[in-house]
Order: sequence, then C-alpha cells, then structure tokens
Amino acid sequence: MGIEIEQPCVQLSKVAVSETHGEDSPYFAGWKAYDENPYDELTNPSGVIQMGLAENQVSFDLLEKYLEEHSEASTWGKGAPGFRENALFQDYHGLKSFRTAMASFMEQIRGGRAKFDPERVVLTAGATAANELLTFIIANPGEALLVPTPYYPGFDRDLRWRTGVNIVPIHCDSSNNFQITPEALEAAYKEAEEKNTRVKGVLITNPSNPLGATIQRRVLENILDFVTRKNIHLVSDEIYSGSVFSSSEFVSVAEILESRGYKNSERVHIVYSLSKDLGLPGFRVGTIYSYNDKVVTTARRMSSFTLISSQTQHLLASMLSDKSFTEKYIKTNRERLRKRYQMMVEGLKSVGIECLKGNAGLFCWMNLSPLLENKATREGELELWNAILHEVKLNISPGSSCHCSEPGWFRVCFANMSEQTLDVALDRIRSFMERIRKY
Amino acid sequence: MGIEIEQPCVQLSKVAVSETHGEDSPYFAGWKAYDENPYDELTNPSGVIQMGLAENQVSFDLLEKYLEEHSEASTWGKGAPGFRENALFQDYHGLKSFRTAMASFMEQIRGGRAKFDPERVVLTAGATAANELLTFIIANPGEALLVPTPYYPGFDRDLRWRTGVNIVPIHCDSSNNFQITPEALEAAYKEAEEKNTRVKGVLITNPSNPLGATIQRRVLENILDFVTRKNIHLVSDEIYSGSVFSSSEFVSVAEILESRGYKNSERVHIVYSLSKDLGLPGFRVGTIYSYNDKVVTTARRMSSFTLISSQTQHLLASMLSDKSFTEKYIKTNRERLRKRYQMMVEGLKSVGIECLKGNAGLFCWMNLSPLLENKATREGELELWNAILHEVKLNISPGSSCHCSEPGWFRVCFANMSEQTLDVALDRIRSFMERIRKY
Repeated sequence: MGIEIEQPCVQLSKVAVSETHGEDSPYFAGWKAYDENPYDELTNPSGVIQMGLAENQVSFDLLEKYLEEHSEASTWGKGAPGFRENALFQDYHGLKSFRTAMASFMEQIRGGRAKFDPERVVLTAGATAANELLTFIIANPGEALLVPTPYYPGFDRDLRWRTGVNIVPIHCDSSNNFQITPEALEAAYKEAEEKNTRVKGVLITNPSNPLGATIQRRVLENILDFVTRKNIHLVSDEIYSGSVFSSSEFVSVAEILESRGYKNSERVHIVYSLSKDLGLPGFRVGTIYSYNDKVVTTARRMSSFTLISSQTQHLLASMLSDKSFTEKYIKTNRERLRKRYQMMVEGLKSVGIECLKGNAGLFCWMNLSPLLENKATREGELELWNAILHEVKLNISPGSSCHCSEPGWFRVCFANMSEQTLDVALDRIRSFMERIRKY
Repeated sequence: MGIEIEQPCVQLSKVAVSETHGEDSPYFAGWKAYDENPYDELTNPSGVIQMGLAENQVSFDLLEKYLEEHSEASTWGKGAPGFRENALFQDYHGLKSFRTAMASFMEQIRGGRAKFDPERVVLTAGATAANELLTFIIANPGEALLVPTPYYPGFDRDLRWRTGVNIVPIHCDSSNNFQITPEALEAAYKEAEEKNTRVKGVLITNPSNPLGATIQRRVLENILDFVTRKNIHLVSDEIYSGSVFSSSEFVSVAEILESRGYKNSERVHIVYSLSKDLGLPGFRVGTIYSYNDKVVTTARRMSSFTLISSQTQHLLASMLSDKSFTEKYIKTNRERLRKRYQMMVEGLKSVGIECLKGNAGLFCWMNLSPLLENKATREGELELWNAILHEVKLNISPGSSCHCSEPGWFRVCFANMSEQTLDVALDRIRSFMERIRKY
C-alpha cells in the first residue's frame, strides 16, 4: 500500500481472524495462478485458461443491443426529475417497478408454471448476501443447515463466516448421479443430532452448482416432505434457473408449492440473482423470495446492509419489463449454453473423459477418477489438479473444494470464454491425455 | 401480499425475532405518520412535513448539470466493450478508478490536510454496511463499543443487531455543548467493566449526527490517547465531512494521525459515504478507510456481502475524478447548507427557541427543554414530540431516540425540502409557540 504503517497488536474479533472465509482453499488458489499468468490468444498463448469461473459471456451481445436501442434505460432523460428521485430513493423495499419486473422474469424462466408476488421479493446485493441473510434469519450460532455435496465452495463463507452457523453435509455420490436420497437426508440429520447440533434447514441449489444438473421432481417432493416432517426450513438457491438448456427440464420448488396449494410453503425460501442467467455479476443483483410473511419483513429490514443501487434497479426494471426482449434472451441464451455444453462434453468424450449428464449451468462435472488409479484419495485428486493447473495450464475446480465425497471429480466452466479459447483448452486436455496414456 | 399463505410455526432465529432493528422506536414512528399524510404545497398543504430525514437536496442541480454535460458517465459508449467489462466486474476490491477518485475526493473535502491511499479504501453498499462490517471485525458477540450520546438511532441496529455486540453510552450533556470529555470516556469504560463487558472500541461521528457540530481538535486528541491507552479501536464515522459549512472548521482524525506520523493509527478506521455529502443514498456507496492492514484485507473479503454496483462505481468514478466539478460542488454545497442552517436557527430564535451552535450537517439540534417545565423527563419529551407530530404536523426526531441523557432536545432536518417548505414549517412552529404562550 502507498501509506505504510507500523502494525502493532490491537485485537480483532474471532470472526476476523478465522479462516472460514475459505480463501486459502485450492478453489481460490487456482484463481491466483490464473491472475498471475492469464491466457490471451495473441499476447500470452501459453498462459493459464480460467475454467474455474462460472461466468456467462455467451449472450452479452443481446444485452448490448438492448442498451444501444434503449438509451433511456441507462439515463434519466434530459432535465427530467428522474435522476433526482432515483438517486434519493432509499426505501429498502426497492423500486416497485424493479420488483415487479423481477417477479415477472422469474415466472417467465419457469415457463409460467409458477406465480411470484412482487410484495414477496426482497432485494439484496447479490445471492452471496441473500444466502447469508437467510441463514441469519433461520439459524442461531452453533445450529446447522444441511447441504447436499458436492456444493459451491463459497457456501462455507456465505452460510458460516459471520453467522456462526454450521454446515452438515448430505453425502451424495455417483452411484445415482449425485441425486439426494431420503436416506442421505436422514443420515445427515442423524449425524447432526449425534453432535448435539440442532438442524434448522436444508439448502439446495437447483440447478446444482457444481453438477450442472437440475433436481428431479420426485427428489424435490421428498425434500419438501422431509423438511415438513422435521419442521425446518428449505432454502432453494435457483440462481441458474434461466441457464437450464430447456425450460421443460427444470422444476422449481415454486411449482411444487403451487401444485400443493402453498401448503407448508411458509418454510420455503427461494434465492435468485441476475449474475449468472443475465451475466451481470458486477451489478450485484440478488433476491430472496419467501413464502413466510415474517421472513419477508425481517429480510427486508436486514437488507439495509446490502441494498442494490437504485441506478441499477432503474436500468434493469426497463430491461426486464420488456417482454419481447426477455423472451428472446431466455430462448437464445438457453440454446447457446446447450451448444457450449455439447462442445465441451463431446470434446472430452473424444479423449475418453466422461462427464455427469448435465442439462443446466455454465460448467460440467468431469470424472477424472480413472486417472487416479491406486491413489483414489483427496491427496491424489489435488496432485492431479495441481498438474492440470501448472502443466496443462487450465484452472479447474477440484471436487474436494466442493466437499465431494468421491475423489476425482472436477468442475469445468465453459461459458466465460470464446469458442476459440474453449478449443484451445480442449486441445490441451487432449495432449495431456495422450501424454498420460504413453506411460 | 398478492399471494396469501397460511403461516404456521416454523422457528426463526433469535436475531430474526429480536427487536434490535429498532423500527418500533419514535424515530421510525414519525416517518410512518409522515408517509400516511405527506405535506405537499399544492395537493396537501396541511400534511405532515418531514423534518426527520437527513437528506441533502440543496445541490442536486449541480449533479444534474454534470450528468447532462457528461452523458458518457451514465453509459458505456456505443458498441464499446465498456458495458461488458463493467457488468462482469466482480472483483471485491472495486474499480481502481473509483477507489482512486474516492480517496482523492476525501482529500479534497479535508482541504488537502490528509492523504488517502486508494489501496486502503474498502467499498461497501452504504455506511450502514460499513459500520456493521467494522463491528464484526473488531468485536465479538457480548463485547461492547463505546458511543457518545446523543447518537444516530440507526446505530442500535447497525452495530448490534446481527453482530450481537453491545453499545455502552458515553454520556455527554449540554453543560459543555455535548463535547466528549476524558471523564465521560473513563466513566463509560468503567460502566462496561462493572458489567463484565469487554470494550473493544469507541465509535464517534464527526461531524456529529444529531448535533450538527464538528468535534474539536483537542477532544479528538484526547479520544485518540484514550483508545491507545486502553489498546482498543477507534471508528470515526465522517459521513458528513463534506457538509461542514467551512472546510477549516473540520478536523478529521486522519489529519491528527498524519501529524503524529501515523503512530498508533493501526487502531483507527474511518467510515465515509456519498449518501449525505453528494445526496445519493439510493446509489448505496459507502467506504471503510482503515490504517490496519489486516482490517483492510478482512473488510475487503467481507465486502462480498455488500458490494457496490459496478455501473454506479463507473458513473461516480467519472464524476469524482473531475476536479473542477468536485471543487465547485464542495464549495457551493457548503455555502448553501450554511444558508439553510442560518435560515433555520434564526427562524427558531425569533420565536424564542435556541439551538446548539452548529457548523455542519443537514440538521440542527433544537432545545425545547424550557417547554417541558415540570415534566422534564423522557415521557414529557415524547408527549411534546407527539403534539408536534400530530398538531403542528412536523416530524422531528426526539433526543431520547438518540439516547440523549437530557430531555427536551430534538433533531430537526432542513436540507430535504425547498426553502418554501422550510418557511411553512417555521410558520407552524411560530403559531405553536404563540398558542403555548397563551396558556
């Protein structure tokens, strides 16, 4: 830093000195390796290709076109009182126009099979904040949420760091394509009980990150019955719901609640965001949709700590209330993601690598366990990950960083780069596999 | 809500069901009365005038003019890659250009008497989040911060609600114009010790909200010596630093640290925001400036929960790096606020009401204790407040909501309305005083 200051010892909190933020895990270590030597087709063709970042760049041209044709969305009109009202807007309910547009966009993504009430939409600065906020609301320090593995590494920070809440894993494995079984749910609950840890809810991601697959209706029904029986909460993080390759393949928990006449829905909370489906992580737009009146009120009050810029709400209210734009965007985005996914899995298949059958998201779940041979352990996985990072120069995410209980699985992102770069990455994997087979 | 749902009992956390959010206090009750019957010169001339909202509307024309002349600040240029980069930007360090502009703006406000390093600027979605975040970093649940009274009612929520930290008041009173004395600091520390509560820091607001006055250099020096002696932290919330009527009347803790060669500065953290000085609360722009390397690193990681939209960072980076604009803005804004302040206190003086001598902020600290007569208690104050709200139709903030230890003081905001409306408010107060004197 420019101003260097002697740093004697004034004490910080336990939260501040804890490692729960998780930034020292391989998940983030790989990012650093990429940052130090980033691939560029022209200037650094031997650099590291970032395949550890779930970012959607495949449909940006559609957003750019919209903005070119609708400059009023970015500005407030000359001399109009719009800027003043917008800049002063600090009601933590958020702009009505934006909440309405969000509710309607969430309906569109679900093919109209679920209704969303704008009065139940709570805004937060990203899904990171939404998940933390819900954890603060449903669990006390020392209590637990059950989370199916493999799960997004950031949850270790989001659900635990400042809240003091624990995560108890629901172990899933490849024997049934990592689907969540009633037995696994019960086993996790029992594990918590044996540790005298009170369970306050289940948190699922649907579609799953890192699996890149949706949860089946029957499985969702089971989970809903489970949380009802235990009288606990269900948080359904659906931030990839618009990135399912075909709308009909996604069942939101909202649809099941609607079909059940909202019975037992007061325990269900949905998290959504525009970071993935619209590719706008910089704009920090997250939402909580809760069926529980008290959670809505409390989450809204708590959202004072994490509000969305009214300038950004204004822009997105315009964009998302333009139905012809959103329809086209959703459709095109799904098609392009499916194409990328196919390019990826077919490329891998041609060199003998299998992936879990996916139907959603910005990544695939790649099985390199055959390469571990007699070192089928977390250490073996991390050795392989290290070789891929430093020799093949690809940053991918090891399954162990997602708490996967089987070694050898990796999450590989495919939507944060051009097709050309993806081709380079596939070529590198091909050479790597050829080198390995020679031994 | 549009979708009505039966609400059986699924348990929420202690945080969720606590009243620490403070929204049931008179401070917020007055807002509700205003919301139900808001004054409008033409359509509702007998409605409630909102004087409980510290909002700066006096210099909006300057911002509007800037935006008209610099449309590139709101957009990204036609066909340019600017939008894409901006929308994808999710580095929690924030845009370098914005942090640099913020550091430079903070220097300008302090007349160049303190330097700020952009690498020590941490961004948060408003000062609300900044204060909470610092509390999470410096104190554990059950520990305490010392805060001089009267203080901003929102601190009860920001510093306590989710952190579990306590506030121990440093009692200040009118005998020395509510300045913080070494005796009051020691007494508060002792009070905490007697309750077996560990003190981790002092939080001051300079200029003070609700006093509308800056803290004197000698007092600041005392506070700094106190926190050094006790080996605890000092948070200096300086969100009104650009709203001091004359730059020379404000001493930032940053200047004192600079003059001491940054000795003991590792315990000092400054909070700033653009909500007050620029009048942009809707944009949610707050910062933490810390002299402690570990706090900078931890706060940055924690800022994942409360990032600022990159769209808004882009707009403000343009605006604040335009030195000719900022110089003119700061100067004009100070002059206009001083004029408003004078209009307010002279109007009150003419009907026999005294205010604390102020030199900053968007409000004055009005002494109605002579009206309490033989009911000089919190109840008496709230009765008077109630009469002013429902009979005079002015929403002002009672000192008791700011934990003032002397009854009869009120915070009255003057910058969130036109001069015409301020005249109406003063007329109402005049009539009220005349009515009272008749009895």
